Amino acid sequence: MTEFRSVAAATGEPFGEPFQVDGPAEVAAACAAAEAAFDVYRATSREDRARFLERIAAEILALGDSLVEAAVAESGLPRGRIENERGRTIGQLQMFADVVRKGLWQQLRIDPALPERQPLPRPDLRLRMIPLGPVAVFGASNFPLAFSTAGGDTASALAAGCPVVVKGHPAHPQTGALVAGAIARAVEASGLPAGVFGHVAGPSNELGAALVQDPRITAVGFTGSRGGGLALVKLAQAREVPIPVYAEMSSINPVLLLPEALKARGEALGKAFVGSLTMGAGQFCTNPGLVIAIAGEGLDAFVAAASGAVAEAAPQTMLTTGIRAAFGSGTGALAGHAAVETLAQGDAGNTTCGGAVLFQTTGAQFLADKALQHEVFGASSIVVRCQDEAELAAVVAGLEGQLTATLQMDGADEPLAGRLLPLLERKAGRILANGWPTGVEVCHAMVHGGPFPATSDARTTSVGSLAIDRFLRPVSYQNLAQAILPAELRDDAKTDGAPRLIDGALTLG
Amino acid sequence: MTEFRSVAAATGEPFGEPFQVDGPAEVAAACAAAEAAFDVYRATSREDRARFLERIAAEILALGDSLVEAAVAESGLPRGRIENERGRTIGQLQMFADVVRKGLWQQLRIDPALPERQPLPRPDLRLRMIPLGPVAVFGASNFPLAFSTAGGDTASALAAGCPVVVKGHPAHPQTGALVAGAIARAVEASGLPAGVFGHVAGPSNELGAALVQDPRITAVGFTGSRGGGLALVKLAQAREVPIPVYAEMSSINPVLLLPEALKARGEALGKAFVGSLTMGAGQFCTNPGLVIAIAGEGLDAFVAAASGAVAEAAPQTMLTTGIRAAFGSGTGALAGHAAVETLAQGDAGNTTCGGAVLFQTTGAQFLADKALQHEVFGASSIVVRCQDEAELAAVVAGLEGQLTATLQMDGADEPLAGRLLPLLERKAGRILANGWPTGVEVCHAMVHGGPFPATSDARTTSVGSLAIDRFLRPVSYQNLAQAILPAELRDDAKTDGAPRLIDGALTLG
Repeated sequence: MTEFRSVAAATGEPFGEPFQVDGPAEVAAACAAAEAAFDVYRATSREDRARFLERIAAEILALGDSLVEAAVAESGLPRGRIENERGRTIGQLQMFADVVRKGLWQQLRIDPALPERQPLPRPDLRLRMIPLGPVAVFGASNFPLAFSTAGGDTASALAAGCPVVVKGHPAHPQTGALVAGAIARAVEASGLPAGVFGHVAGPSNELGAALVQDPRITAVGFTGSRGGGLALVKLAQAREVPIPVYAEMSSINPVLLLPEALKARGEALGKAFVGSLTMGAGQFCTNPGLVIAIAGEGLDAFVAAASGAVAEAAPQTMLTTGIRAAFGSGTGALAGHAAVETLAQGDAGNTTCGGAVLFQTTGAQFLADKALQHEVFGASSIVVRCQDEAELAAVVAGLEGQLTATLQMDGADEPLAGRLLPLLERKAGRILANGWPTGVEVCHAMVHGGPFPATSDARTTSVGSLAIDRFLRPVSYQNLAQAILPAELRDDAKTDGAPRLIDGALTLG
Repeated sequence: MTEFRSVAAATGEPFGEPFQVDGPAEVAAACAAAEAAFDVYRATSREDRARFLERIAAEILALGDSLVEAAVAESGLPRGRIENERGRTIGQLQMFADVVRKGLWQQLRIDPALPERQPLPRPDLRLRMIPLGPVAVFGASNFPLAFSTAGGDTASALAAGCPVVVKGHPAHPQTGALVAGAIARAVEASGLPAGVFGHVAGPSNELGAALVQDPRITAVGFTGSRGGGLALVKLAQAREVPIPVYAEMSSINPVLLLPEALKARGEALGKAFVGSLTMGAGQFCTNPGLVIAIAGEGLDAFVAAASGAVAEAAPQTMLTTGIRAAFGSGTGALAGHAAVETLAQGDAGNTTCGGAVLFQTTGAQFLADKALQHEVFGASSIVVRCQDEAELAAVVAGLEGQLTATLQMDGADEPLAGRLLPLLERKAGRILANGWPTGVEVCHAMVHGGPFPATSDARTTSVGSLAIDRFLRPVSYQNLAQAILPAELRDDAKTDGAPRLIDGALTLG
């Protein structure tokens, strides 16, 4: 196969112009160009790099409606959702431009020499973070803009000073090609070497494997399935020089309905929950796939309302027919599970559309079978009825790592929430109250990450400004002459607002 | 085997009281206690945790001469070196107490709610770093104090809020037991649960494997051989829940003699180099095992002086007879290598003492055989004679990752140093000028780390205050009521000097 085409999510039929299937030669060329561009790119000033990121945002916006139309056709997501996603994509590029300008990420540290210290003098030591090198980014199926070609991984890696080679997701080649073109124009307009950004595309897993195995690649960003993420981690670890993989993989995002909240507003919670469950056909990493509560009238009201809303939910176009089929298998397995009761199922849709499904089990049954924790990508969720607080806590303690954990709670639930919080902190990267996990704010205090298997590296986030740290490493300079020290570490450095830790004391630039 | 004994490094003979050989039961008990202690320990105030670290330092000092005598006997290192190492051990505990008090490591971030924002309101988001959980630390043979039971890994993990289980190095059980006792007394005196610190010991690798595989362990700190480090990484990756391993493994610490410096002071450099090479019998992670220079009179003078000093160097007691034997094998292999010339060899010593050896090869020969880059632990080094700057740069480009890279340079060498710097930054965690890599300052701007295989994770350091970050992960709190928010993230938090990033702007506490 030398060409492949877009597939319309709504029909499963190919459309549009064919795209070249890239192979090892294109991967090698992109990685060689990225390596060649690295030293030039990382030497750019913070201001120049920030402007480059802003230029990418402008070029994406300049694509206009053609980009929105391509993404809608390829993903099947509603137009409003894609427009919002474009806004988020542009917004996060602009946020990283701001982050680059402020310079906190450089972690500048200076420990001046102490020539008179006893028993030994202290040398002059200075530290900064430098970018790792070329980064491979895998486009995600469920965010054709915000987590793909110019998405969060690309933006944070470019912000760190790393050239990026994107492996476009095969479900949206046209969207990917449009955005790749926009980035390439920004690279050229900014006077940067072309290798700062590379793009390869094709339907095979081998293409991605070749990219991760290329010795010039120094880190990987990925959002997708658990199987895909683990395969990339394995490849990265088996290299002659292993590299970090930031894979955001699998999460069922437990929602805990605490007793007083349930008592006060079980029905309203049930309706609102289904709104979150069915948003974007349930195809969010933070989709609420698990509801945990203590049995009682409040939970009965929640279940009744949620079941009613699920039964009425219209089927929605899913991202690909493969994802639709996997959703059918996953929900089918749950429906056939001896310990699981099907509470409600909407119109099941067809080979491109999926409906919503709501299941129920008990705390004891949930604890007895780890398979009930497997993510079913789409609008599927399980209500776990617990006998009491002890069983609820045991269910939480038995959970795998998660991106999010949600508390629906009233003031009188605060003591219980306080008892649960230390446990939730160990299970999830983000804990939220009285909201729904779908909808991930791009800001400084966001964590879109969490313990394994939510991600392959719980020490980071893939959304928000902290994501830049993934692509940096510290270098220390000892007794270097001013003339050869990196400019930002010299005595006369213009820090332009970047903070410095001088002899252990933080000083604002 | 149920007991094992100390071995005197100087004689290879056992001495002193026997120690229990710990096994799976002791590992499980220590890990269970660490897990049970975690939530209590991580909830300690910054001030209480800082005082606890200071108390450990005081308890170690209170061991007095018995500790120094045990470490000298077990390691064979000179008394002055051990006394300095004790000073460093205490100093780094005190530094981490200061780091804990200052609170920068918490990375407090607050993005206030924007209820009026369009198209969607922004929720209130707050972020802090929390400790990972119980940490396994492996004692190092070559630093019985500063990188063992209460060494840098232990100090930084405790500072982060992680309970620690140490697997003591079998080469210094008495030293380890004394220090473990001191820490246990500090735990008790501080009113902390006993599980905050655990200690297991024994001569087998299985003991360490069981520790890394225990599901309650969440991260590993290790300083030792490449084989040992890679084995631990493999075990950690194969767990049901993989965990990070911070292994500091293998480095030959290239020293680049630049032309003008060589011309001006080749002979003096040669003598000073041997001082660094033979310090502590060459048993430093940062021992200069490689010298790279362009051939010429200056290098001839360096080689003549270094060869003379090596020939006169007295053999020194090595840490263990096993390490002495490995040093013999490693230097023997180099001596027998067709592309390597033996420049000088001091008195070869015996089964416990090792001498110094200096070898020479050409740039072309060095580039042709990766085996010449293998670390020989001890006072062994290779001079690589390059034809010109291009070959010198090629030799540097061909190096594996390193802890350090050293430039011996004069003012007129600055242009060349400037050209080499981008390359050196990608090869090493610390770059130093006109000094020697041995001697690692414990401070804020230190990096004792570097690209693979110097370490298993180039994004961190195992020495200096930045090391605390290895044991932390971010958690985000969305719309949590003030009453259940972590105290340091509340509106009325007493930050006690800890900086906060509020809406992206850094503010000093």
